[in-house]
Amino acid sequence: MADVARLAGVSMATASRALSGSAGVAPATRERVLAVAAEFSYVVSPEASRLAGGATRRVAVVVPHLSRWFFGALLEGLDGVLGDADLDVLLYQVKHASDRRDFFERLPARRKVDAVVVLAFPLREHERKRLELMGVTIVAAGGRSDSYPYVCIDDYAAGRRAVDHLVTLGHRRIGMIATVDPEESGWPGTVRRREAYHDALRDAGIPRDENLEVTVEWGGCHGAEAMERLLRVTDPPTAIFAWADEYALGAIRTLRRAGLDVPGDVSVIGIDDHPLAELTDLTTVRQPVRQQGILAGQMLIGLLRGDAVDRAVTVPTGLVLRGSTAPPRH
Amino acid sequence: MADVARLAGVSMATASRALSGSAGVAPATRERVLAVAAEFSYVVSPEASRLAGGATRRVAVVVPHLSRWFFGALLEGLDGVLGDADLDVLLYQVKHASDRRDFFERLPARRKVDAVVVLAFPLREHERKRLELMGVTIVAAGGRSDSYPYVCIDDYAAGRRAVDHLVTLGHRRIGMIATVDPEESGWPGTVRRREAYHDALRDAGIPRDENLEVTVEWGGCHGAEAMERLLRVTDPPTAIFAWADEYALGAIRTLRRAGLDVPGDVSVIGIDDHPLAELTDLTTVRQPVRQQGILAGQMLIGLLRGDAVDRAVTVPTGLVLRGSTAPPRH
Repeated sequence: MADVARLAGVSMATASRALSGSAGVAPATRERVLAVAAEFSYVVSPEASRLAGGATRRVAVVVPHLSRWFFGALLEGLDGVLGDADLDVLLYQVKHASDRRDFFERLPARRKVDAVVVLAFPLREHERKRLELMGVTIVAAGGRSDSYPYVCIDDYAAGRRAVDHLVTLGHRRIGMIATVDPEESGWPGTVRRREAYHDALRDAGIPRDENLEVTVEWGGCHGAEAMERLLRVTDPPTAIFAWADEYALGAIRTLRRAGLDVPGDVSVIGIDDHPLAELTDLTTVRQPVRQQGILAGQMLIGLLRGDAVDRAVTVPTGLVLRGSTAPPRH
Repeated sequence: MADVARLAGVSMATASRALSGSAGVAPATRERVLAVAAEFSYVVSPEASRLAGGATRRVAVVVPHLSRWFFGALLEGLDGVLGDADLDVLLYQVKHASDRRDFFERLPARRKVDAVVVLAFPLREHERKRLELMGVTIVAAGGRSDSYPYVCIDDYAAGRRAVDHLVTLGHRRIGMIATVDPEESGWPGTVRRREAYHDALRDAGIPRDENLEVTVEWGGCHGAEAMERLLRVTDPPTAIFAWADEYALGAIRTLRRAGLDVPGDVSVIGIDDHPLAELTDLTTVRQPVRQQGILAGQMLIGLLRGDAVDRAVTVPTGLVLRGSTAPPRH
């Protein structure tokens, strides 16, 4: 900017005001400054006028996975709302431990964003501290957070809906395919889905059998493997509660390959209502994923404006009955 | 920065050099400037030192959909490479016509990015002109581009692989479920898949029947509807070439609901190798989607560095035989 000011024959302060469109600059002066700036390909930059602590109009979105439907749908909802508010989204994918380390080391050291949205993964203590250094607004979406305002589903209620449905159909041998991310720990949702399964069995007077609980890493193929293990159990399950539709579809593949009919021999229910659940006739507990992204975006915009907002939003889930569940054969 | 310079008792130039870590500033002076800057919460900003046309270290990624697997996987590959190169990704979702208009009006007016990556959608003439105004590097991924360096598959080859497979199995009544996006037109890939279908039939001496070509909007449920129409044709098809796995899964649902066996009564093949294709035992033509994102990121980094790079990269596709195709019943 010093060059622009010099060539236009004005002070730095005047050049700055002219470029930023502030009041107090004579029209002729402004025109001269803009002409010089244009010659320099000097684009009026939001950053330039806001260096000392102003808003960047940018939001960092931190997401562990981009090719999984759940995260894509969350991001789609969130990005739409932020874009409409003229906020730019800086995307940070923290797929691996090294990405996470890099992200949490680098981002706070620069003043790049006004806010951070964390999509569906739990932060560790030292990561929280790094984010706090930035002094920016933080929102969590797609999972409950103990530290930040959040939008999520009630994982306990979702799990109960699924298992209660199987119990109501008359099933007593109900298997569970649960998930664990080897790089994560302590995501509260997972704990709550397991609690829901245990409580639903207890309330129905069904004894727990640890052989019917299989925990695998994320991915439909792991759901298929989990089902293979469940089929090898003495007195195998007649119904499966899968923590996600992808697992449920994997389980169904295993059942079909074993010559078993779904739902004739084994019922299967998932959670999510993945777009392909409808195409594969899968009974599931629907969660509105895109909507969670939208609500998180609206919450963030409210917080940035200083509005009083509800900082703990839980969106409802609902049972979607399709063709993969039925009463057990007698 | 003027305030920092004044309070530190140095010139703007010295303050700037001290903050940016340039040579030629006495250690004591640098320390004084940094101390004053710290008091002002003045963060050394990459933007500040590069206002007159330097690199922003940011890349705009323009994508029409985020919740569809194909775009998420492309973005995942691309984002990983750019992140490793310490480039920030500014995400622009242009789902609707109004988003597109906004994006192409606004982005070029600001110098926010060093480069633009366009993910799998064709640009209109006036959009190309707007992007060119920016004078930045542009790369297309997930679709061939007439205007920019690109990474894509050979859509003709993919289509041929699919239809030739059905022909080789002995099918003569081969239906096609094609796609059209009402907001798009002229995406070269779509034209090439249709050509491949026509050529494969011609080479096999199979007469064309327009009743066997159904074009629908994107989405698995539209694949299901397309299949309903194909079943109503006199002498219905014994095999289906679907332009995407989602369509194929939709078609399979319709066939099952009609009491038809896949592949006993009707064979179905898709394109993509969607993660759920494996779980649903779908024969398909695999395209490496994440890899296209990775290669586009590497191409972009090469272009930004001024390296000589291959500006037209076509990644191979391959037939994945699973359980949804078989010879026709006689």
